[in-house]
Amino acid sequence: MRPSLGFYVTYTLSLCLGLLCLLFVSCWSSLWRGGFSWTGSPLEFNWHPVLMVSGLVVLHGNAALVYRVPFTWRQRKQTWKLVHAGLMLVGFILSVLGLYVVFDYHRGLNLTHLYSLHSWVGICTVAVFALQWILGLAGFLFPCSPLCFRSNLKPVHVCVGKAILILSLISCVSGITEKLQLVAKNKGPYSSLPVEGKFANFLGLLIVSFGLVVLGILSKDNWQRPETDGEIIIQMSCLLQLLPREDSI
Amino acid sequence: MRPSLGFYVTYTLSLCLGLLCLLFVSCWSSLWRGGFSWTGSPLEFNWHPVLMVSGLVVLHGNAALVYRVPFTWRQRKQTWKLVHAGLMLVGFILSVLGLYVVFDYHRGLNLTHLYSLHSWVGICTVAVFALQWILGLAGFLFPCSPLCFRSNLKPVHVCVGKAILILSLISCVSGITEKLQLVAKNKGPYSSLPVEGKFANFLGLLIVSFGLVVLGILSKDNWQRPETDGEIIIQMSCLLQLLPREDSI
Repeated sequence: MRPSLGFYVTYTLSLCLGLLCLLFVSCWSSLWRGGFSWTGSPLEFNWHPVLMVSGLVVLHGNAALVYRVPFTWRQRKQTWKLVHAGLMLVGFILSVLGLYVVFDYHRGLNLTHLYSLHSWVGICTVAVFALQWILGLAGFLFPCSPLCFRSNLKPVHVCVGKAILILSLISCVSGITEKLQLVAKNKGPYSSLPVEGKFANFLGLLIVSFGLVVLGILSKDNWQRPETDGEIIIQMSCLLQLLPREDSI
Repeated sequence: MRPSLGFYVTYTLSLCLGLLCLLFVSCWSSLWRGGFSWTGSPLEFNWHPVLMVSGLVVLHGNAALVYRVPFTWRQRKQTWKLVHAGLMLVGFILSVLGLYVVFDYHRGLNLTHLYSLHSWVGICTVAVFALQWILGLAGFLFPCSPLCFRSNLKPVHVCVGKAILILSLISCVSGITEKLQLVAKNKGPYSSLPVEGKFANFLGLLIVSFGLVVLGILSKDNWQRPETDGEIIIQMSCLLQLLPREDSI
């Protein structure tokens, strides 16, 4: 299968959008929200958007695209499984750190935890991410996992991966909305659309665009890594096991 | 192809979640936000969440699933194309009405239009929905549209349809977040999680669950309407036209 020009253009777009997301969220936290600090300071919160956008959106999205990059097709799939799992693990650790800082910030200022819709969707997203990573490790990286379990897990793993990315987009956009509304209470109306409002709104659009481009690449069947003969044989033997046998009719 | 039990269970779940979304959003607007009214009253706003959830999420999602219902496979595809287009049109009209009431409410209270991230994502969603409906009409319902244009438009139409549903979920969750934060300013803290806060958060989770179930059904290739021989011939002839001819080498 020849690598397509369309893929390279769309993949480059996703990389640029991912970098812009990281740049914009870092600028928002540092230029308008006062920069970063560790425990004990209200500035600790500012790590939250940076860690969540980096872990749940940009790293997660790029890890999902690893198998689509044509130069990886000539190499051992096992190597790229490790890269995929490694990137996902880093993304997951960043998102857990992102949760830690927000809980610590709430504790420091005696604020309520987990009251908003953003926090409910966000915590569900990280929980499903954890479950997906553990199941992926058990199914695709443990050498003793049965081949038919792997084959049946794959479509579920792909589907849940896309759902996590959608949940991440929803969490990020609702989080930006919530933060801008809370900030507006203290620093003048968000409705007057100050530069910070425009900037953070634009960050939200960048995150949504990145997510949709990644999901678009994942939905193109002819940009998938071609399956090896061994993988096709395993899938067919699993399918044959599911069919009713002649002697059982 | 036999209709699968898995499909019927998941489809029933999507119908139940859709009905619950309608019930919850209507209850939120009527029980906690003071009910409905037309022009000139602040209660006019309460139509906005009901119309948006009905049009952009529930009707749009159900219209996308029309071709998956196995009992439609034995009937003429043209009939179900008209049902699909009709449901989409009703969904689109409801979402335009939903935009109208919010602009009218803002005008009445002299509030700024289109300042929030929610409004930016929402207006993009409705604009893409309009474009998708017009292109769908031109490509799939006008008898004079070239068969190859139809065949090439189909994967784009499917992909953009899913993107609209994702944008709708993002718009709805960010809208609920924004409304709850604005209400919290006037009626006590959202962070104390009053019954309204819990109820509207739960509505958000229902909307997300409905969207993910619909996207899950759409992603299952073996739940697709089987293509007729005529459709396969058209696709193959379009593919052959794209291949280089022997005399051009």
